[in-house]
Amino acid sequence: MSKGRILSGMRPTGRLHIGHLSVLENWVRLQEEYDCFFFAADYHAMTTAYDDTGAIKENTREMVADWLAVGLDPEKSVIFVQSHIPEHAELHLLFSMFTPLSWLERVPTYKDQVQHFKEQGKDIMTYGFLGYPLLQAADILIYRADAVPVGEDQLPHLELCREVARRFNHLYAKIFPEPRAELSRVTLLPGVDGRKMSKSYANDIAITASFDDIKKRVNAMITDPARIRKTDPGHPEVCVVHKYHHYYSQEKVLAIEEDCRAARVGCVACKRFLAEKINEILTPIRERREKISERYVTEVIKEGARKARAEAGATMELVRQALNI
Amino acid sequence: MSKGRILSGMRPTGRLHIGHLSVLENWVRLQEEYDCFFFAADYHAMTTAYDDTGAIKENTREMVADWLAVGLDPEKSVIFVQSHIPEHAELHLLFSMFTPLSWLERVPTYKDQVQHFKEQGKDIMTYGFLGYPLLQAADILIYRADAVPVGEDQLPHLELCREVARRFNHLYAKIFPEPRAELSRVTLLPGVDGRKMSKSYANDIAITASFDDIKKRVNAMITDPARIRKTDPGHPEVCVVHKYHHYYSQEKVLAIEEDCRAARVGCVACKRFLAEKINEILTPIRERREKISERYVTEVIKEGARKARAEAGATMELVRQALNI
Repeated sequence: MSKGRILSGMRPTGRLHIGHLSVLENWVRLQEEYDCFFFAADYHAMTTAYDDTGAIKENTREMVADWLAVGLDPEKSVIFVQSHIPEHAELHLLFSMFTPLSWLERVPTYKDQVQHFKEQGKDIMTYGFLGYPLLQAADILIYRADAVPVGEDQLPHLELCREVARRFNHLYAKIFPEPRAELSRVTLLPGVDGRKMSKSYANDIAITASFDDIKKRVNAMITDPARIRKTDPGHPEVCVVHKYHHYYSQEKVLAIEEDCRAARVGCVACKRFLAEKINEILTPIRERREKISERYVTEVIKEGARKARAEAGATMELVRQALNI
Repeated sequence: MSKGRILSGMRPTGRLHIGHLSVLENWVRLQEEYDCFFFAADYHAMTTAYDDTGAIKENTREMVADWLAVGLDPEKSVIFVQSHIPEHAELHLLFSMFTPLSWLERVPTYKDQVQHFKEQGKDIMTYGFLGYPLLQAADILIYRADAVPVGEDQLPHLELCREVARRFNHLYAKIFPEPRAELSRVTLLPGVDGRKMSKSYANDIAITASFDDIKKRVNAMITDPARIRKTDPGHPEVCVVHKYHHYYSQEKVLAIEEDCRAARVGCVACKRFLAEKINEILTPIRERREKISERYVTEVIKEGARKARAEAGATMELVRQALNI
């Protein structure tokens, strides 16, 4: 029996990298226990990239193909694209009518992000950027989701969603659940250069990377700068390779650490071992990904749109009755 | 041949009063020259009345019935309800992504209205209220209208709409015309007590008022307080009845003025004459209105929704292509 309904989404960034795997593996687990709705948040991509939308559609399709390769199952979950479901926009507009500006202005990420983009010379102080947590609330509530898998940094957004649900229920009729947080431990892996992993920094490993690609990127990983010769003792705590071993070689990570500190294993061998470990994980994903055709992706998101619209339409029906429009 | 496409809307206030007639008569004229889209702006009603939506649907239907009674013709014009066309909400959301907050904050009516409602003890500083000129832009541009009949007070809203069209055309693809103002002279009649005419002040005359109702309201009109006896000379410039004669008795207004100043006609006779004049205008409207069934209104707005969605859908198709979503 299902534990309830889960909604989660991801901005379409194109092909995914191993930094995304931990979130996706969580989704794959969740689909065994919940009714899951997973969506490509292409509207959200526009809040910060409205002037560069050229790649959104292709990025969306590549991302969905990667989801399927990792194990999202369209038989178990509803997999769809946000902009295919106009009800998200409708509910967002209706919510906007009773949502105080101050609720949005006080979301902690708002001012942070405006500042962050400003430093890059970009002004994102648009009406849509201010409103994106409200769009998220509509994304979640249009499916009357019971829970949302979130990291701690997103809790303020979920709190806004719960406030919006409460306010609607209070003003009109009790339609919406107040979705709870399904807190999930997500591992944040750094890029090979130690910075945040991002395709745009070229410091990532694609989840569809070949063994050669994996080796190239692992070889580029920053190791302990104080360890010049193999015979120098290493300091795993400053080594990117070691951070990856924590995740990919869990069963051996203590031994690896000891060998490094004792200079029993050199960086070349240590990297080779990690590359093999990563390749082990990625090989089945890569193989599945190769079999996923353009046509299959089209079918999946078309069928997902059909199922999602049926649910979203039913919610809008209740909303219209409640508002008497 | 049509001069182009016109879009105009009205908030659903329920049955209309004679203060609305001048706008509607203008619409009736416009439908002979333009392809017209007229809509009941029920979403807009929610920007200031989100906590009291109970009457929106009935108000919408009554208003549309009154439109038909005045002479809007569903064979000539597309007559529809805003919330029946989800594309308005979609386009509004997409526009929000590239519309600077500052464009909305500087619309002159925004701060005025916030202040106005604040004095009545109501807080309308919501996300939706800030965004309503952007929703108007979407209302207009989703039909790629060439012109909009506006009063001078609405010119800043139209300017925002033109800016949004320009920005979209510049960022993505040239889809939208920049709609021009179709400036129309609209007569503003005061209520019978000299204040702004409004159903909520009970100082209005419904366009479907019976002759008895008309006489009652005209008798309640404020006249020159200095004219106590019929033999006292009157001062038409301070008399509400006289303001109405300007509009309803144009051909005789100079004679009426002279008779009043010379105390040749008393207020009772003057009011009786006005009531008859108003009744002459309203009788054919009232008679048509009596023949308009609930069912006919349903048919009109259903067929209007069908036509409007076809146009709005075609625009959204172009928008999706331009944005590549």
